[in-house]
Amino acid sequence: MQVDGTTYRTVWRDSTREGVVQIIDQRRLPWNFAIEDLHRVSEVSTAIREMHVRGAGCIGATAGYGMWLAAREAGGSPNRLQELANQLVATRPTASNLAWAVEKQLAILRTRPPEQWDHVAKAEAEAIANEDAEWCRHIGEHGLELIENLARNKPKGKAVNILTHCNAGWLAFTDWGSATAPIYAAQRAGLPVHVWVDETRPRNQGARLTAWELANENVPHTVIVDNAGGHLMQNGMVDLVITGTDRTTSTGDVANKIGTYLKALAARDNGIPFYVALPSSTFDWSIRDGVRDIPIEERDGAEVSAIDGVTPDGTVEEVHIVNPGSRVANHAFDVTPARLITGLITERGICEASEDGIAALFPEKAGSHLPGLPSHP
Amino acid sequence: MQVDGTTYRTVWRDSTREGVVQIIDQRRLPWNFAIEDLHRVSEVSTAIREMHVRGAGCIGATAGYGMWLAAREAGGSPNRLQELANQLVATRPTASNLAWAVEKQLAILRTRPPEQWDHVAKAEAEAIANEDAEWCRHIGEHGLELIENLARNKPKGKAVNILTHCNAGWLAFTDWGSATAPIYAAQRAGLPVHVWVDETRPRNQGARLTAWELANENVPHTVIVDNAGGHLMQNGMVDLVITGTDRTTSTGDVANKIGTYLKALAARDNGIPFYVALPSSTFDWSIRDGVRDIPIEERDGAEVSAIDGVTPDGTVEEVHIVNPGSRVANHAFDVTPARLITGLITERGICEASEDGIAALFPEKAGSHLPGLPSHP
Repeated sequence: MQVDGTTYRTVWRDSTREGVVQIIDQRRLPWNFAIEDLHRVSEVSTAIREMHVRGAGCIGATAGYGMWLAAREAGGSPNRLQELANQLVATRPTASNLAWAVEKQLAILRTRPPEQWDHVAKAEAEAIANEDAEWCRHIGEHGLELIENLARNKPKGKAVNILTHCNAGWLAFTDWGSATAPIYAAQRAGLPVHVWVDETRPRNQGARLTAWELANENVPHTVIVDNAGGHLMQNGMVDLVITGTDRTTSTGDVANKIGTYLKALAARDNGIPFYVALPSSTFDWSIRDGVRDIPIEERDGAEVSAIDGVTPDGTVEEVHIVNPGSRVANHAFDVTPARLITGLITERGICEASEDGIAALFPEKAGSHLPGLPSHP
Repeated sequence: MQVDGTTYRTVWRDSTREGVVQIIDQRRLPWNFAIEDLHRVSEVSTAIREMHVRGAGCIGATAGYGMWLAAREAGGSPNRLQELANQLVATRPTASNLAWAVEKQLAILRTRPPEQWDHVAKAEAEAIANEDAEWCRHIGEHGLELIENLARNKPKGKAVNILTHCNAGWLAFTDWGSATAPIYAAQRAGLPVHVWVDETRPRNQGARLTAWELANENVPHTVIVDNAGGHLMQNGMVDLVITGTDRTTSTGDVANKIGTYLKALAARDNGIPFYVALPSSTFDWSIRDGVRDIPIEERDGAEVSAIDGVTPDGTVEEVHIVNPGSRVANHAFDVTPARLITGLITERGICEASEDGIAALFPEKAGSHLPGLPSHP
């Protein structure tokens, strides 16, 4: 997507220097747009662990490229290759796309002689990144139909108002994003859209990343506090809600950034369609009851009690914003039950957020899960 | 209430220095606890306008004391007294308690000779502040019954978990607060309580003021982002929600800090009682449909895009936290429809959030409103 008028992905192979992977260092956004070179697996591991990159698709693609560097670095030793793979997987143990991409590369490399590793792993890394982008592009095409339908019922030229939460944008994938893909598709199709961007406390991915993405794509948008969405919906200022998801049950429950559930409740109370956009890689086919069975990560309270931003003199500084000594809790996700979700926008099309709806679109997956095996496609 | 073990109100007459009013300068909380002396009406006006004091009850009481200083400053001139009164009222034109307190003082002073003004206005200022505290204390007594009932259904010694939004605490009144009054009453009655404190973006009154209040009263509490309440309710971690209100219709709709509506939706979805605590002075007897008829103030977007806090070296600094150039909207309040409210906790008792419920408790007010007359008791 566009950054200052130039097209980027979140992670790519430098075409001019063999063995160099480049990423957008997302820690510095939106204050600084910085590109980082990664030459070795240890650098890729640091980039994933310390969240230079984040988001399921982006982490998966970065790990795919990391395994290419591992294939070059292993010196033909299968043991060393496995060690480097383990090092990558350990960076963020709960990121399922990470383990999936590493495993995918390992499975292929195990069948090939070492002299082919570099070549094969490079091609596979590109394939992983391309598939991620392609799936997101399809999500955009399917979601575009929803926006077109809403635009038809608006006075000509009036923008369709879409609310989104957190960053399910292209920065979280390699390109297009999930929740943002239909928005970018609509913008490119010339449909007038306006996006309400939830700031998304505590890490403010909306105010920092989604707003930055939309600004660079010239999509009209307005940043709001997470508290505001209910009021906007109550007053006819939202036509559609689209969010992403971190994990989706086979029955359509969705675990996403904390606060998603509150927006779904407000959408239901005001008769506003609430869609979740996802590549099918976020399905966890082993879980049927999201509220009961999806464990919710509790993260460091410092993410709530301190925040970084830019001071009037332009330096980035962290300030403490909670009464000193007060206890802080930081639940990172919540579960939105399928009953509150109008539909799921996947790379294969839009389906009802229900076991039947999902099974109709993914018949080869539904009911096929064997506990203990990776559920990723 | 307690601050570092000493009892304070938010505004009071200095008993040792005639003609001196003192306030807690709330702008500096929780980083600094500072008491400010006010000697002249101009100083009171500044304190109200620049939000050294805030909250309906606290503003009303401060204006009452301001009119005492006006009575001393007017030099026996009714015209000058009126000018000083106008100056006070102009500081925050939409604060109904402010105009009400000034008008109350003026009405009394107009009937008295100038030589009695100082004495009469001082007594009236004390009466206004005392009534505010007394009403809040009654709210606490009535709300305590709710907490006692919930405590009975908990394993012995297990805390009743109460979620609150924004600061409807003693800092917003002269003492006790509205939403916090039942909590302080429970704490003093020896009932175990724990409070989930919504940070309350954008001005963070929860993380700054409510948390500070509760810490000083030794009430166990945990600060959370505004996004978290739904997840907590979904997982049995909230027994009761109590918020305040800025304006309440005769039918029980409630305009309160933005985000209150989302918490009411989550409480309804999870079968958790949602109560609103209010002195009856917040009723607007002229309005029947809150969503349609209560105008919602849009405030400066800078309240969303910038935030102040304490840097690691202990200085207070403001940082910008939104993608530069992105538009920001800042709706300050939302309306929670009566259908989502379990009950209203008033100084006279608890009633249903409905026209009949309210009329039964305030029969002298219900249906008595003449448009254009002040509706304040």
